[in-house]
Parts: sequence; C-alpha cells; structure tokens
Amino acid sequence: MDYAKSFFMDISVLRLGHRLPRDERISTHVALVARAFGASSIAYTGQHDAGLEDSVRKICGNWGGKVSIEYVKSHTSFIRKAKADGYCVVHLTMYGLPLQQKAPELRKRDKILVVVGSEHVPGEVYQMADFNISVTNQPHSEVAALAITLDRLTDGRELLPPEAGGFDFGGKLRIVPAERGKTVVNQ
Amino acid sequence: MDYAKSFFMDISVLRLGHRLPRDERISTHVALVARAFGASSIAYTGQHDAGLEDSVRKICGNWGGKVSIEYVKSHTSFIRKAKADGYCVVHLTMYGLPLQQKAPELRKRDKILVVVGSEHVPGEVYQMADFNISVTNQPHSEVAALAITLDRLTDGRELLPPEAGGFDFGGKLRIVPAERGKTVVNQ
Repeated sequence: MDYAKSFFMDISVLRLGHRLPRDERISTHVALVARAFGASSIAYTGQHDAGLEDSVRKICGNWGGKVSIEYVKSHTSFIRKAKADGYCVVHLTMYGLPLQQKAPELRKRDKILVVVGSEHVPGEVYQMADFNISVTNQPHSEVAALAITLDRLTDGRELLPPEAGGFDFGGKLRIVPAERGKTVVNQ
Repeated sequence: MDYAKSFFMDISVLRLGHRLPRDERISTHVALVARAFGASSIAYTGQHDAGLEDSVRKICGNWGGKVSIEYVKSHTSFIRKAKADGYCVVHLTMYGLPLQQKAPELRKRDKILVVVGSEHVPGEVYQMADFNISVTNQPHSEVAALAITLDRLTDGRELLPPEAGGFDFGGKLRIVPAERGKTVVNQ
C-alpha cells in the first residue's frame, strides 16, 4: 500500500442536483461517505439545504475531521474553476469506463474532484469531466460508487487505523471496536 | 484473486426496520447494491413496501440477474432459520470489529447472511450475529458499508467483466463502457 501517495491526495466531492425532500438522506450518505473515505471538501448543487450542511457539521463536531460543505449555484463554473485549480475531474456514471481500468492512472493525481450525479445529469458534465468512470455497469447507488472509488483511489485507507496510515479524525467521540454491543469513548 | 471461491459464496442480505417514506430510497440503494455486488437474495423487515419490491424486480427484468426480494415479519426467526441453514450471520455496525481484520475468516464461508440495520437496531441482533463487523468506525452509510463488505468478500468481483470472473447478469439491457455519453445495447 502506498500511504505516502494517498496521504497527499486532495479529494473533493461535488454532488449534483440535490432535491428536497427526495434526496435528503441519499445526499447525506454521499457527504458522510466523502468524509469517512478521505475527502476534504464537499460541494453540492440543486436546492440549498441547511439541514444537510448541519448534519455534516454536527458529525464533524462529534466525530472529528475538517471536511467542509458548501452550496454552489452552477456546476459548470465550479467544475471549470476546479480544473483551473489543477483538479482532475472524475464523473461517476454507470456508462463510463471501468474504475479498475483507470484507477492506476487516477492514483497518480494529487487533486481529484469526484462528481456524483443524481437522477438526471446534464450532458455537459460528461464533456467537462476528465474521466467518466463506472463502478460496475449495473444500476445501483451513487453512495456505493463513491465509496468504492475512494477506496480504490486511497488503497483502502479508510479501513486502516491511524497508526497504520488511516485517517485520524481526532473527534471527541471514538469507537472501540467490539465483538458485541457498543463501546464509545467520549474524550 | 480466488474466483472459484467467490463463485460459490451464497450471499443473502437482510435489511432491518424499513420505514416509509423515510427509508424508501436508502433501502432501494441497499437492495440494488446487494444485487450488483453478488447477493442472490434480499429480505427486509419493518414496513411492507410493494414499491421497493417492484423496483428490484424491474431492475432484474431490464438488467438481468435473479436476486429475490421478500418481506419478513420477524428478524429473529429469519436469522435463526438462516443460522440453522448454515449461514454465517454478519451484522454490519460501526461498533463492530474491523472488516479488514475478519475478512480472511469470512471469505472461508460458503453461505453468508449480511444484516444491514437502519436507525435503531435491536440489541438481540448483536447477540445473534456470528460477527459484528465495522466498515470504518466512523458514521457514514449502510449502503457504502454493504458495498465495501461485498467487495472484500468477493475479491472485488463486482468490478470484473464476466470473462474475467465477474457476475454475468445476462440482462436485455447492457452498457458498453464509453469515454463520453451513454451506450446501451438492448438485446
């Protein structure tokens, strides 16, 4: 495992077309997966949702980490700016090229913006993306697609304890893994 | 990769405590991930939801695969019967032992029932499970936890094409992976 490399990968996630109440929970799952799997910032388009932002901030308050969340009006200007800032734009779509085929190439990048769609993704996203990437070519879930993508980009770093190269969230709440039941330490 | 082994692993998924309308989409994502990542059957408790079952059947009708979905009233009798039938019961919970620690042991089993909770998981599930397993000890998503678990149990088989040991869904719709846009073959 190449910890040094994954340590320096700057991962940002853009969730497209958030709608209320329909996407309330799915977008929250997208955001929490982004955080737990190593992203440092989350942006979303569609409807502004203070509840979504609060959820993410509450999780960071309790469980640590410094992931930011911001609402953006235009995905095109956001993606254009990310590209100008040196981000490699990876759009997840079941129609794209297989993740396993492109992962070695993507892992060489220092800055990646992962774009996660909702029901209808505007055509220009496919054009603006540096890579259109599929996590299987079967219909399933943008939450799962994001998790598997970040898992592959960081060499499964989300599963490692901090002392083995995993993310150190440094939250006031911390779980002590247990065979049965729940053990939470409040520091 | 140990294709022969994963080929013979019988994977079943039990989703606990489905509530309408709150869990409508999350449970659908759980079910579609189960299908795309190799499960052969899905069961759920909580509220009966014909829409959830229809979604899964529609996906199978178009995209293939033979995953079944059934509503069960009692998770305790379902889990008890699964254990009697030789299933190893793996309950996913952020409080459990790390997936990466237990995966080698789980991969030796032929029949696995993955139990996926919702907001409140009854205490007896922790007791009845053969393994309480965490996919990171951070709060994120049961959809992502299921995806990463099935990915590790099957050696990433969901990402492989059928000719390399991947699942062959044999659906009437099939995607031809493309650099841009959407290419779907209707057979």
